[in-house]
Parts: sequence; C-alpha cells; structure tokens
Amino acid sequence: MLREKDTPSQNTLKPPLHRFVRSILERYEWLKLKQALLYAYDASPFYHRLFNKYHVKPRDITSFADMTKLPMTTPGDLQANPRSFFCVPDEKFIKVFTTSGTTSAPKKAYFTQRDIDSIINSSVTGMRLLYHIAPHDIVRLTFEEGYGTEIWGNRYCLEHTFGKIGALTLVTGRLKIEDELKILLEYKPTVFMDVSSRINYLTTELKKLHDLDTLGINRILLGAEPTPNTMRKKIEKTWNTDVYMGYGTTEFGMNMAGECEEKHGMHLTETNFLTEVIDPKTGEHLEDGEIGELVFTTFNREGMPFIRYRSNDLGHIIPDRCPCGLPLKKIEIKGRTDDMLPIGAGDNLFTRMFDDILFGQPEVIEYQAIFERKEGKDHITIIAETTTITDTLRKKIFTGLMELPEINNGVHISNTVAPPLVQLVKPNTLDRNSLKARRLIDKRNLYD
Amino acid sequence: MLREKDTPSQNTLKPPLHRFVRSILERYEWLKLKQALLYAYDASPFYHRLFNKYHVKPRDITSFADMTKLPMTTPGDLQANPRSFFCVPDEKFIKVFTTSGTTSAPKKAYFTQRDIDSIINSSVTGMRLLYHIAPHDIVRLTFEEGYGTEIWGNRYCLEHTFGKIGALTLVTGRLKIEDELKILLEYKPTVFMDVSSRINYLTTELKKLHDLDTLGINRILLGAEPTPNTMRKKIEKTWNTDVYMGYGTTEFGMNMAGECEEKHGMHLTETNFLTEVIDPKTGEHLEDGEIGELVFTTFNREGMPFIRYRSNDLGHIIPDRCPCGLPLKKIEIKGRTDDMLPIGAGDNLFTRMFDDILFGQPEVIEYQAIFERKEGKDHITIIAETTTITDTLRKKIFTGLMELPEINNGVHISNTVAPPLVQLVKPNTLDRNSLKARRLIDKRNLYD
Repeated sequence: MLREKDTPSQNTLKPPLHRFVRSILERYEWLKLKQALLYAYDASPFYHRLFNKYHVKPRDITSFADMTKLPMTTPGDLQANPRSFFCVPDEKFIKVFTTSGTTSAPKKAYFTQRDIDSIINSSVTGMRLLYHIAPHDIVRLTFEEGYGTEIWGNRYCLEHTFGKIGALTLVTGRLKIEDELKILLEYKPTVFMDVSSRINYLTTELKKLHDLDTLGINRILLGAEPTPNTMRKKIEKTWNTDVYMGYGTTEFGMNMAGECEEKHGMHLTETNFLTEVIDPKTGEHLEDGEIGELVFTTFNREGMPFIRYRSNDLGHIIPDRCPCGLPLKKIEIKGRTDDMLPIGAGDNLFTRMFDDILFGQPEVIEYQAIFERKEGKDHITIIAETTTITDTLRKKIFTGLMELPEINNGVHISNTVAPPLVQLVKPNTLDRNSLKARRLIDKRNLYD
Repeated sequence: MLREKDTPSQNTLKPPLHRFVRSILERYEWLKLKQALLYAYDASPFYHRLFNKYHVKPRDITSFADMTKLPMTTPGDLQANPRSFFCVPDEKFIKVFTTSGTTSAPKKAYFTQRDIDSIINSSVTGMRLLYHIAPHDIVRLTFEEGYGTEIWGNRYCLEHTFGKIGALTLVTGRLKIEDELKILLEYKPTVFMDVSSRINYLTTELKKLHDLDTLGINRILLGAEPTPNTMRKKIEKTWNTDVYMGYGTTEFGMNMAGECEEKHGMHLTETNFLTEVIDPKTGEHLEDGEIGELVFTTFNREGMPFIRYRSNDLGHIIPDRCPCGLPLKKIEIKGRTDDMLPIGAGDNLFTRMFDDILFGQPEVIEYQAIFERKEGKDHITIIAETTTITDTLRKKIFTGLMELPEINNGVHISNTVAPPLVQLVKPNTLDRNSLKARRLIDKRNLYD
C-alpha cells in the first residue's frame, strides 16, 4: 500500500467462521448450478441439443466433479449461432454486447433487462466492497463504447454501476491529453477507470503537463487487459495512489472478478457463476493452484445462459484464504490460451514475460513484439516506444530477453531462435487504433 | 403520411373532453409551478438571492401572468456559477451534462438520480405515446457522448429510455458508412435516431450502397437540430418511412417536445416544465401564435432547478387543438436568437431561409454560409456539398437566394449587400468535426 488506509479492514473472518461462510456459499452455488442446468436444458435449443447429443441430463450431475460429464461450450459455438442460445423471445432483449471480431467472427452476447440488472447489482456490491466507492466519489470513466461495429458492454455496465451507487460519473470517450487534463482539473475526480495500456499512456503524457499526485485521484481501476506489475508500480508511484485490477469477458457482461486491498489475485463473483479450472488438452479438473483454462457457467442469466463456457484464459485458483477476510475465492490470470506462443524447439513464451521485461524499464511506454520465421528460425523483433532512445536501454532490454530460458535455449542450444532485435522508437509511433493494446504480432504460419 | 398506419389514432378527444383535460392539466401545472418556486427560493442560493434582489417572493405569484414579476435566468448565470443553483449536497449528483463551449464558456447542468429518473420516465411516456416504441423494436442510436470535454446527456438519457421500454438498443458512436451498413443489415433495426445533419449525410451515402427502403427502418427520429422540411422529405422518401422531430436542451435534460403523427409542431412535455413565450426585448408575454423567445421553468428538478430560464430559442405556441387528440400544447421552433442575422440596411435573415433554399435541391448534402463585410457591404459566400457539380445547380441556388427579399433589397435597393457567391464542392469537403452541423459562419465584427 502506498498510502495509509483510512480504516483498517474489518472483514477478517476467523478460520472457523470462514469455513462456515464458505460452506454456505458452496451450498448456495450448488443450488444455483442445478437450477441453471435445468433452465438451460429446458429453454435453450442449443443446450437441449448439446446435452442430448452427449446423452447427459441435468439430473446426472450430482456433484461438482460430475461437471466434467457435460460437454463444454466454445466461443466458436457462440459465433456460429448466438440465437440458438436464446431462452426467451427476441423482444425481451435490450442489449447486445459484441467483441470486435478483428481476429475471428464477432461474438455476440444478448442480455435482457433482468440480466443487465443482475450484472449491475453485483457490480455495485463489488465496487462498494472492494473499492469503497460512495456517493461522494467522482468517477472519471473513459472506456469507449467499442470500435467500428463492436459494441462494448463494459462502458454501459460501469456507467450504471457508478450511477446506482450515486457517484457523479464523468463519461466521455478517450480525449486528447490536454482535454483529459481539463476534465481532471475541472471536476476533480477521485476515481479513474480505463484499460491499463490507456492509463499507462495517460500517465506518461499527463505527467509532462501536471503533477499527477496533487490531482486527488485516490483509486485507479484497471480492466480488460492484463497489467504487468512493473506498469502498475509506475502508475501507482506517479499518481501516488493504489491501482486495482479487474477481470471480465464480454460474454459474461464483464465485472467477473476484482482485486481487494491485498492486490494479490482477484476475488471471483462466486454468486453469479461457477468457475472451473481444467487441463485445456484433457478437459480434466485441476487442483487449486494448478494453471489451466478457466471455464465458466452462469447462474443468473435469463436470456442467454452459458454452461461450461471456455474462456480461453489461463489461470489458477489461489488456494489460500485471503487476509482481507472476503470469503470469495481468488483467481490469478496467467495469459490466454492463444497468447501462449510456441517458440524454437517446443518451448512456450507468454506475452506476460515480455511485459515484465519491457515495462520494467520506466522509460518504456508501449511495445510490440513481432514474430517471423526465416530460414527455419524464429525471429523476434521488439519495437519499444520510449521517452529516451539510448543504447543503454536497448542493451538492457536485449539482456532481459536473452535471460528468458525459452529464448536463451533456442539461441544457444537448439539453434532454432535468432537473437532478438530491439528497436527503440519515439512515443506515439505505434498504432493505437484499437480498444486494447495489441502487443503481439505473430506473422508465422504456425498452423499450416 | 407515406405509409398506411397500422392502427388509426385512438386518442381523439372531442372538444368538451379536450377542454376538461386541459383544465385539469393546467391546474396540475399551476400546483407544480407553485411548489417549484417555493423549492427554488428555499433551497437554491442563486434563486434566493435573485428573488430577494428583485423583492419578489414565491407567494407574490398568484397567476400565470404574474410570472413576469420574476426575473429571468440567462445561460450566462449558469456559466458563471453552476454550483450556486445547487439545492442538494454535492454527493447527490450522479451526472453532469455540458455544452461544448466552442462559442462561449461551457454550460454545466447537474442531475441527481431522481432528476435522471424523472427525465427518463417522461421520455419513456413520450416515446411510447408518440412513436409507439415497444419491446419488439430494435433501435439504432448513433448519438455521440459529446466532443472534446463536452458531455452530452442526450445519448445517456435516450439509451435508458429505450432500454426501459425494453427495446434492443444498438449504441455506438458514429461509424464509417460501410460499418453503419453492416450494423443495419446485421441487426435489422426498426428505429433510427440521430441529429438531422448526420441522418441526411447517412441517407446520401448509404443509398449508394444499398436500397434503403428495404432495410425495415420504420421510424426515423431526429433531435438536437432544426430540420428543414425539404431535408425531411428527402429522408422520408429515401427510407420510405416517417421522420419525426424532437426538441430539447442540455440544461433541461433533453426530450422536451416531440412531433406526433401530424408532423406539425412538437407537443410539449407540459407535466415537466412551464413554457412561456416572451418578447425578447421587453420580456412581456406574447399571445399563442406570436413568435418570441421560449422561456422555461422546471417542475421536477431536485438538484438544480431553473426558474424562467431563457432558452435563446425563438418559436411560438400553435394555438389550435391538435387533430391527433393529444391534449399537450405544441410549439414550433423558428430559430435561435443568435442565428437571426442582421444584414444590409437593417433586415434580418434566419438560417432556416438558407436551409430551405439549399436542401430544396436534392443533390445538396450540406452547406456553409459565410458572412463577411468588405467595403461597407455584406458579402455572402455559400459553399454547398453536392453529389453533382453543375452550372445549372449553381444558378438555381443563386436564384433562390436572390428571391429572398432581405437579400434582394440589399443588392438592388439599399446597395448594402453584394450579390451572393455560390461555390459547389464535392461531398466530405466541409469539416464535420462537431456534434451538430455549423452552417453559419459570421466573420463580421457586428458588435464592434
């Protein structure tokens, strides 16, 4: 913690009490799960067909371990026919949130009023409980509504969450740096929320114009992107405040997990959905602590429920009880199944590894890693935006990369990876025309 | 009407019933007005001071005619100190809507949750009553959240209005033409809403790519800008649908009046505010039918009420009972006090006059009128965006302009106006970087 807390945490549950609360929560989850399975089987043509195809009925699920009897739902199923998931007539839907569909067909998730209310209510609870958002807060929310034909639900749900709490919320899209500063000086927000790459960029640019720790922002909330620890620390130091991370997906209406004051793992909204961690290859359940793919089942979705939906996100359940006292399980996201990059002779790199090396240098604002295959070798080019272009910085980054065993082995042992190339460029050189930063560009035909 | 109506109007009130309903409505308005005056005097420091300064108390207002005893509030009062209007503690506000402040300091209107609810509820009633918006409708809303540091409330209030009705609402900012078409084909909206200059632009560009009357849009709602009749007819013809206009201001949370199926004047939301029409110079009340400045008083605003707020809009109350049967009074907006242009030897032009001439030509998409003073004469340059640049079109526009007595007199009689210059340019030449079209650019130093 950078600042002294106003009040000490009063949530701490002693071990027997914690176990008691967990047992109630788990019984509640079990009942909700049973209801959700019955509802999806009865009302959704997609799940009715799918369950029948696998010869499994909701009554066959008699324990959490039984969930593996049920087939999983993939993003591809949703892309192929969102309407087959519908459990209510079309006219009951009031919102559709979509993914951008830049890399594949867009995913469309439809929501009824009851679905939206349920998401917002749970989000209100989370924002109050974790970040003490109150009516006297002034929230600066700069999420976009989406790009192109994308309709991003995060902006909508969060605007309503803060409104329902009663905080004054200042919502515009992303502004020019000077305009952003005008808003900060004019309305004096206490809370700032955007995706981490945007906050990182704002931090670097705004601090040239103003002393950011005097602005009165006392919580920064980040969502939608993994945030390297080095980046978080830089932001916290510059604004002299705490930065908290959240997690969510478009399909689930966002706001699925958030960090508490411990900043070590994100508490899951267990009352809204079931989380399973599976081996992405075998589909088997993994133990708490083991890294696997996160698979979610909605409890409260009226319009379009999901049963065992593969998130493509890799992570693990943190096995320990959280010192903050909140009885909800915590997850840590490690990456995505699709940002695990095979390299050289069968090694795997995660984007995160680059994040830590690049954002470990305070001068670095943003970067792109480009992968190409030439003459049987993997070539990695790192283009880093930086405030000062020096040979020392270039060498530091190069050394950092070479210290990754995955790269080092490829270069020195199997001779399957070329020494990485590091290019430093001025701020604002990289394209920022997308909602989230795209740091990884793989030009190899890995799947040919 | 372009299409046959599904159901004939069932609202028609016979004259005695109409008079009875009007009398109840007026008694209700009177009670709300009295309450609003007491509340503003008690709770708002601004109104307390202002009433005292003019030695008038709420109890001195014993009839509608007495309203002229009360001082008026100007946009300048709001710009100078919005906080002095506050009737509740800061923490009760959840929204601030602002004007862009391109021509003067931005105006900031703050709203509590109750204020927002009241606006949305009244807007829901209006959308159901006037346009029969229902849960099976799919609404395409392309209003922006504002430009730069502006926070435009219209997008927020309308998104919630349609959501509350239960219609699926597709909200993004303004898209590229191809992306807009994708949304229209993909989700098949039944209702389209934006400002008129944007819809006009979309109409011209989209019809090059697709037959618009096959898309299934069956109501187009326009707001925020006056819409020339010629433009409306072009849009209606191209989409084969009805176009309805609405009226509202940022300070009042938008949605203040809307056209019914008669398309002749906009019904005022009389249950939400009082409308006075005054002589802008003397401040005296005008009769129904006489054109003057519209002055509004809020009935239901908790956070920041307005008493006799000058809208700067010029219009008149239509004296007749509306054939649609709705007992609410209708207004017609004629222009703004600040788009009435003195020209030549004391004549006055309204922007509207140009609208009708320019948009009367189906090839014209948008235009700008630039006023300059050179050697004692007013010089008018019209730059018109058009799909086909021909000398015939240029001459038609010139002839239209010369038929305006205000210009003709100046050119031929008083010799104070130069013959107008007409330039035709290709589509997309004019700057569209603002929320509403800026058709009038006056470079003369009129107030020197």
